[in-house]
Amino acid sequence: MSSESDFLDWIRSQQSSSAFVTLAAGDDLAALNWPGGELVMVGCDQVLDGVHFDSSKHTPREIARKAMNRNLSDCAAMACLPAAATATVALPRGAGIEYAKELYLGLREAGEVFNCPIVGGDTASWEGKLVLSVSILGRMDGVAPITRGGAKAGDGIFVTGSLGGSILGRHMNFTPRVHEARVLAETGTITSMIDISDGLAIDLSRICRQSAVGAMIDVSLIPVHPDAVALSKESKKPPLEHALHDGEDHELLFTTSARPPLGRRIGSITADRSLVLSENGKQQPLSPKGWDHSL
Amino acid sequence: MSSESDFLDWIRSQQSSSAFVTLAAGDDLAALNWPGGELVMVGCDQVLDGVHFDSSKHTPREIARKAMNRNLSDCAAMACLPAAATATVALPRGAGIEYAKELYLGLREAGEVFNCPIVGGDTASWEGKLVLSVSILGRMDGVAPITRGGAKAGDGIFVTGSLGGSILGRHMNFTPRVHEARVLAETGTITSMIDISDGLAIDLSRICRQSAVGAMIDVSLIPVHPDAVALSKESKKPPLEHALHDGEDHELLFTTSARPPLGRRIGSITADRSLVLSENGKQQPLSPKGWDHSL
Repeated sequence: MSSESDFLDWIRSQQSSSAFVTLAAGDDLAALNWPGGELVMVGCDQVLDGVHFDSSKHTPREIARKAMNRNLSDCAAMACLPAAATATVALPRGAGIEYAKELYLGLREAGEVFNCPIVGGDTASWEGKLVLSVSILGRMDGVAPITRGGAKAGDGIFVTGSLGGSILGRHMNFTPRVHEARVLAETGTITSMIDISDGLAIDLSRICRQSAVGAMIDVSLIPVHPDAVALSKESKKPPLEHALHDGEDHELLFTTSARPPLGRRIGSITADRSLVLSENGKQQPLSPKGWDHSL
Repeated sequence: MSSESDFLDWIRSQQSSSAFVTLAAGDDLAALNWPGGELVMVGCDQVLDGVHFDSSKHTPREIARKAMNRNLSDCAAMACLPAAATATVALPRGAGIEYAKELYLGLREAGEVFNCPIVGGDTASWEGKLVLSVSILGRMDGVAPITRGGAKAGDGIFVTGSLGGSILGRHMNFTPRVHEARVLAETGTITSMIDISDGLAIDLSRICRQSAVGAMIDVSLIPVHPDAVALSKESKKPPLEHALHDGEDHELLFTTSARPPLGRRIGSITADRSLVLSENGKQQPLSPKGWDHSL
C-alpha cells in the first residue's frame, strides 16, 4: 500500500482538469497547450547515489549522461523531439568544481546527441550524497504524442531491442530510442508506447491499465539480452525472469495493428484486462513485479 | 575560485548559441522560441535538507511550498506568468507515503495561488536526506521578459519590500512577487529585474554585471525589515548588514528611469561599474558578499 504506483494513483486522484494541460501525470511526459503554438511536452526524472548509480564506481560524466538519457528516453516514449533541459545538482560538499564541471559536460554530451541544450540549472553543495534532477521539454513537430492509453485488443505488442541484465552495465550507457520513436510515430499507426524503465512486465501493465485492455506475451518471442543470460548465472534465476522484470533497458514497448517499420513482436493485446504469459501453448498469469519503488 | 558564481561563469563559457534559445543560463529563467507560439520560459530550483530547510523543524508542506515559491519567484523576476511545474523528490527511506502526499499538497497549494499546476514528477526513496527539485514553465502573455541586462546609467533602483533577517522565518513562507512583476512589466519601462534570493548586494551586482553598469545605494533609503533588527541582537551585526547581505527575501529588485507604480527607490544606476554605498554624503565600496555557495 505504500509503493510509488499507489502514490501516483493518489496524485492522479488529486489533480484537477485544465484546458491548458492536455495530458498530465500518468504518462511519460505531460502535454501543455501552449498559446498560439505547438504542444509543450514536459517531464522530469532524477538519479540518486546508491539507487541509480554508485558514485564510488561511476564517473560524473557517466552519471550525468544517465540522468539526461533517462529524460531523453521519456521523450522517446511520447515520440517527441527533445527541445531543451534544465538540471539541479545536489553536490556533496568537497566534491569540487571540477566534479561539477564533469557533471555538466555529461549532461551536455548526452543532450547534444539529440540537439537538446541544457538551458538552465541550479547547483548547491550539501552534506548529503549526489542527486541529479533533470527536467526536459519536448516538441511534437508534426506528429501527435503517443500515450500509454490507446492500445486496442488485437494490436501486436513490440519491443525495439533485447531485454534483461542491464545492471551489468547497460543501465549506465543505453541509447534513448528517440529516432526509432519518430520513425514509428510517422507511420501514424502506433496506438500506445512507453519506454521500459521499470521492467517489461510492469511497463506493459501500465499500458494495459491506461488502455483498459490485457496482453498475452509469447515467451518464445521475447528477445533476451546476453546480459540476462550472464546475470542468470549469478542470480540463479532463469534469463527470462530478467528479461521480464529487470528495469532500465529503456527500449520502447509499443502496440500497433499494422506492421511497424522496426521492432520485434512479442505478443498481442487482448480484451480481457489480464496479463498472460504463453509458453508452448500453456498459459500462466504474468505478474507485474518489476521495479516499483517503495516509499 | 570554486564558488557557484565561478561555476556559472564557466557554464556560460561552454554554451553554444542557438536560434531556439533566446536567453540561456545567466538569468532567472531561460527563454525558448517555441514553434509558432509564445516564448517558453523555463527554469529550475531545488531545496536541500540542512541547507534550505530543516526537516526536523519544518513540515513537509512548508518545505514543498518553499520549493515551489522559489520557482514562482524566478517567474516573477522575469515578469512571466507561471504556467506549469514538475518536481522530483528524493525521499528518505521510511518517510512514508503520507509524508510524500504532504509534499505534493504543499507544491500544489503554492502553485494554485498563481494557477500553476504540478503536471509531472518523480519520487524515489533513498538512504539520504530529503531533496525536492522543481522545474517551472512560464509564459509572457503579452509582455517582454525582463532580464538582468537592461539597466542604464541614471535609472532608479527599486525594491518591492523590506529586507533582512528572513532566516527568522520568512524564508519559509514568503510570497512570490508575481503580481507585482506583471504590474511593473505592463508599464513597459522596467529596464532590469531580479528576485533577491542571495542578498541585495550580490543580486544587485548581478544586474550591474549583466548590464555593464554600476550602482549607488543610499543607506537611508534601504527598507530594513524588523526581522533584520531582531536578528542583529543575536548576530551583533548592524541591521543594515542583514538588509544588504541576507538571502531569501525574494523581493524584486528592479531598475527604471520612470516612476514605477510600486516599489521603493533605494539608489541609482551609475556608468562606472562599481557598487557604492552612500551614507550622509560619504561613499564606500559595497562588496557583494551575499550567499554564494561554495562547491
